[in-house]
Amino acid sequence: MAGGADEPVERLIALMARLPGLGPRSARRAALQMIRRRALLLDPLVAALSEVAETVRECERCGNIATGPLCAVCADPRRATGEICVVESVADLWAMERAGAFRGHYHVLGGVLSALDGVGPEALRIPDLVARAKAEGAREVILALNATVDGQTTAHYIAGELAPLDLTVSTLAKGVPVGGELDYLDDGTIGAALLARRAM
Amino acid sequence: MAGGADEPVERLIALMARLPGLGPRSARRAALQMIRRRALLLDPLVAALSEVAETVRECERCGNIATGPLCAVCADPRRATGEICVVESVADLWAMERAGAFRGHYHVLGGVLSALDGVGPEALRIPDLVARAKAEGAREVILALNATVDGQTTAHYIAGELAPLDLTVSTLAKGVPVGGELDYLDDGTIGAALLARRAM
Repeated sequence: MAGGADEPVERLIALMARLPGLGPRSARRAALQMIRRRALLLDPLVAALSEVAETVRECERCGNIATGPLCAVCADPRRATGEICVVESVADLWAMERAGAFRGHYHVLGGVLSALDGVGPEALRIPDLVARAKAEGAREVILALNATVDGQTTAHYIAGELAPLDLTVSTLAKGVPVGGELDYLDDGTIGAALLARRAM
Repeated sequence: MAGGADEPVERLIALMARLPGLGPRSARRAALQMIRRRALLLDPLVAALSEVAETVRECERCGNIATGPLCAVCADPRRATGEICVVESVADLWAMERAGAFRGHYHVLGGVLSALDGVGPEALRIPDLVARAKAEGAREVILALNATVDGQTTAHYIAGELAPLDLTVSTLAKGVPVGGELDYLDDGTIGAALLARRAM
């Protein structure tokens, strides 16, 4: 009751303050706003959050967040272009989708190779990627990894694993700032880097 | 599906982006974080939000947000000090509570008098306040209204209405910056202004 609200409201505020982008004070304002705008915010949020909690899972094919066996990207037949775009995280996949420049499928690694943190190829679903590229007869694998040391090391490792297959391996064009991360880039830069991608 | 996520997830993101302090991009990051930290964030948030949506209401006595007939402040017997602190909004009540300097009860007006917006005394529960101060035999009514023109006009009007009663009417000490609003002040300033309150 330290903040003047009843215990369930304080509990909600404490949870919201843990979300990225919200501190204790903005969580308080957000909670108050939700309670004030009950029909517009609180009730729809309860419904949306419950539905997501009940249905959310990992896409069986690409590792994106899904609400069925396949995510919306994989389930869309128009996107079976024979191109697979490899990204580090779901946030990066969403950043690519916001840019709107890629119309194929994705493969989410869930991280990058890191000797220091003991992350090897199996943890990143790289054998999965190779098997999938083979089974789907992919024409091209685009490595859209962050322009960090670990990201580029991972890209080179994957390119090596895919070399025996009959497909093009490409990487995002230089244009991604060195040391920068996809999720923070503007859409135009991501789109330009994708269009200017080069064979690896 | 514009952002790469399934429709229920996109709906959640769109709702979260309407909260104060979150834009479309931070709503996306917050949603992703919730889904990643399922046990720590998503499930507890569903429970907390559902409980708030089911139980939240207005305190019958003071107008604070409550989860029962009375809010936590009004239900606490140790706070029956004979002092009533009048605030404009629930956000201001919470700001007073954070300062921790007041141990009595509150009265939330829900706004300030405004000829321009056609807000009169009845809309602000001012007759309620007078009746309540009389019925509860209050010793003191502290007017903790924002130091804006409308706030101070409202304070003077309320002081006039309470004048016939046998109680002290006080206002927060100067110390609140002119034109400033309670909810944005640091706790120390609010506490100091309350301690140095003066008879009106």
